[in-house]
Amino acid sequence: MKARVHITLKNGVLDPQGKAIQHALTALDFGGVDDVRQGKYIELDLAETDREKALASVEDMCKKLLSNTVIENYVIEIE
Amino acid sequence: MKARVHITLKNGVLDPQGKAIQHALTALDFGGVDDVRQGKYIELDLAETDREKALASVEDMCKKLLSNTVIENYVIEIE
Repeated sequence: MKARVHITLKNGVLDPQGKAIQHALTALDFGGVDDVRQGKYIELDLAETDREKALASVEDMCKKLLSNTVIENYVIEIE
Repeated sequence: MKARVHITLKNGVLDPQGKAIQHALTALDFGGVDDVRQGKYIELDLAETDREKALASVEDMCKKLLSNTVIENYVIEIE
């Protein structure tokens, strides 16, 4: 199964990387960019074929390694 | 409007960050992880209200700043 994980900074957490992109876009004359937030996107190929088990396993991975749950949210899609 | 951009390495391009995650997951006893690819996820808040114009603008941003089109693909969603 394939799992897609989006890891984004929680609201209110400063995103210097996003701000840097925003400034660079403004410097390149792209106007009207009100906000930019950058997150991570991870694709996992899993040997597991059971959807529920795969989801539980990826959730565990997010908590233990992939995300910092103090400042980040994660969203998992399984297909 | 909100734009979501996924930037991923093209197939065949080595992904050391993904490999590092895969090894770390194996070290943490998560078995059955066949492959991991890491990409970037960028959310943009745009002042533009026209869908077509927003898409064209973000596509231009991807080509000029956000992605390295030699080794990366980008997918844009506008909502």
